[in-house]
Amino acid sequence: MLENTERTELSSLGEFGLIKHLTQFIEIVNESTIKGVGDDAAVIDFKGKQTVISTDMLVESVHFDLAYTPLKHLGYKAVSVNVSDIYAMNAVPRQITVSLAISSKFSVEAIEELYSGMMLACHKHKVDIIGGDTTSSKSGLIISITAIGEASPEDLIYRNTSKEGDLLCVTGDLGAAYIGLQLLEREKKIFMESPNVQPDLEGNDYIIERQLKPEARKDIPVLLQKLEVKPTAMIDVSDGLASEILHLCTDSGTGCNLYEEKIPIDPAAYNTAREFNLDPTVCALSGGEDYELLFTIDQSDFPKIKANPDITVIGHMTAKKDGVNLITKGGTSTPLTAQGWDALLKK
Amino acid sequence: MLENTERTELSSLGEFGLIKHLTQFIEIVNESTIKGVGDDAAVIDFKGKQTVISTDMLVESVHFDLAYTPLKHLGYKAVSVNVSDIYAMNAVPRQITVSLAISSKFSVEAIEELYSGMMLACHKHKVDIIGGDTTSSKSGLIISITAIGEASPEDLIYRNTSKEGDLLCVTGDLGAAYIGLQLLEREKKIFMESPNVQPDLEGNDYIIERQLKPEARKDIPVLLQKLEVKPTAMIDVSDGLASEILHLCTDSGTGCNLYEEKIPIDPAAYNTAREFNLDPTVCALSGGEDYELLFTIDQSDFPKIKANPDITVIGHMTAKKDGVNLITKGGTSTPLTAQGWDALLKK
Repeated sequence: MLENTERTELSSLGEFGLIKHLTQFIEIVNESTIKGVGDDAAVIDFKGKQTVISTDMLVESVHFDLAYTPLKHLGYKAVSVNVSDIYAMNAVPRQITVSLAISSKFSVEAIEELYSGMMLACHKHKVDIIGGDTTSSKSGLIISITAIGEASPEDLIYRNTSKEGDLLCVTGDLGAAYIGLQLLEREKKIFMESPNVQPDLEGNDYIIERQLKPEARKDIPVLLQKLEVKPTAMIDVSDGLASEILHLCTDSGTGCNLYEEKIPIDPAAYNTAREFNLDPTVCALSGGEDYELLFTIDQSDFPKIKANPDITVIGHMTAKKDGVNLITKGGTSTPLTAQGWDALLKK
Repeated sequence: MLENTERTELSSLGEFGLIKHLTQFIEIVNESTIKGVGDDAAVIDFKGKQTVISTDMLVESVHFDLAYTPLKHLGYKAVSVNVSDIYAMNAVPRQITVSLAISSKFSVEAIEELYSGMMLACHKHKVDIIGGDTTSSKSGLIISITAIGEASPEDLIYRNTSKEGDLLCVTGDLGAAYIGLQLLEREKKIFMESPNVQPDLEGNDYIIERQLKPEARKDIPVLLQKLEVKPTAMIDVSDGLASEILHLCTDSGTGCNLYEEKIPIDPAAYNTAREFNLDPTVCALSGGEDYELLFTIDQSDFPKIKANPDITVIGHMTAKKDGVNLITKGGTSTPLTAQGWDALLKK
């Protein structure tokens, strides 16, 4: 874990001093950023393209636990989860605003760590930090980020445009972020009970990283364009596969058959889930935080994507009256429900 | 104060239920809002105009005290302070996103009150709520709003374009919001000590309203256009007149002479400040939250604005080397410093 020998109190800089300190190394990389930090508002010019805007808030002790979340990773994740929404519209993220509420338990050095993680993610996604707000909080850290992107109207992909017969596809694999969280929670508990025991996270790098440092799928809109496939609908997997499928179906007015055996789960994640007595399928359905892209394509596009290792067909859209169903490995059909984390019962 | 007989727990609706419940009555009023709430991101089309973006965060016990702030007023204020930044760019606000972190002490009815105040302000400014995030907090309420507006590049007014010789102007009057806060704090203290004593706020409606329900100056960009005056620089007064003047001067590379006797202060606010043993000028300089517009104009535009009761000339811009000075009523010149609220010493 991070150890800072220096500790500068936030109060020594003040709000304007802190903003100046944190934003001094920002270099604008996008032509569309006309004015960044430093006025009443930022100014953007997408030259006739449409503007895409999404916002997410991360709250300490609700969305993250600083006992096992390095601040640099947290900053990286906060940006990733926001730009993920922009990619899910098939748009290109260009700018973010960052608002922070910070309690006095944090030092300037700690906030620098957080900011360096955000800058790293911004660099990766070629995104400019163009503004924000910095204020104090009575308890803990709150991060509110708004991501802004651009797209031509004809490129945008919404949630409500799937149709019966479309194939349901997902990128990467699912469930690992939730399983990574279980590992981190277990090690925290052990550490609280016996502070001298070193954490045993060996061999679990991938799972841990899925939780602490998720990657928004910047590559997928590019890949789809290369494959000449335009999905009929798209959404990112932030709340779990089940919840996102239900969004697609409700908004598009369709049903869906999802095949359990097709859901892509990383082998290491699978084994760790079993160790925890968790059903890996349930982790994929209800765990969330995978930040993969879920989309539907016309059946005629199947040949274009079938050989791609990054895309898995996991089901197909049906008529609304047929409902949204999980076809289990045993061949039975059960209605899919969005349970969220609370319902992740051990079995 | 508000009394709700009903209390519905937030947990009974869940995140998606709450969002649906709160956003069901949103009616989109702007043509530029292509897609509002309900997808990964909202979509906006300003048809070639530039996009202006600003964000502000309000934190319970830091920015507001629910002991004397009705939630409806708070919602109204949260929107006002954000669109104020858009007007300060001489742009037109069109959309906002709203992120809320809410602790379980709040009921659904309480959040409805908050939302109704936001909707009222949105209606006033013809702004669409196009998205946001709703999450739980461990303590209190946090409101993060991002306001989005549009402007033609030639209409935008920045902070860094004042020049030597320009006249410094401000709208409305200053200091009342801070003095209103002192009144509310006093009544809270009396109430805590003797709960049966009714609050004595009579005759202080204006001052109280300046604190609880500030109005963003939607009318000023329209007025300036009518008067055919384009300010050379503009900023809104959120942190106090001194702080904003220093921003203008630092960013524009000028000095300034501000005349104490010219600073517009409401007579009732003046008298109440004296009652509290506060210097009304210091309240105007360092109180903040007035949400008036501060701008500079070319001297040749003076005849166009001089008869307007809503605009007061309070000083003029000088060479950088001459510094930023307050010329007191006694005629002495003292360097202006941005002290913020902490420094509001009783005299």
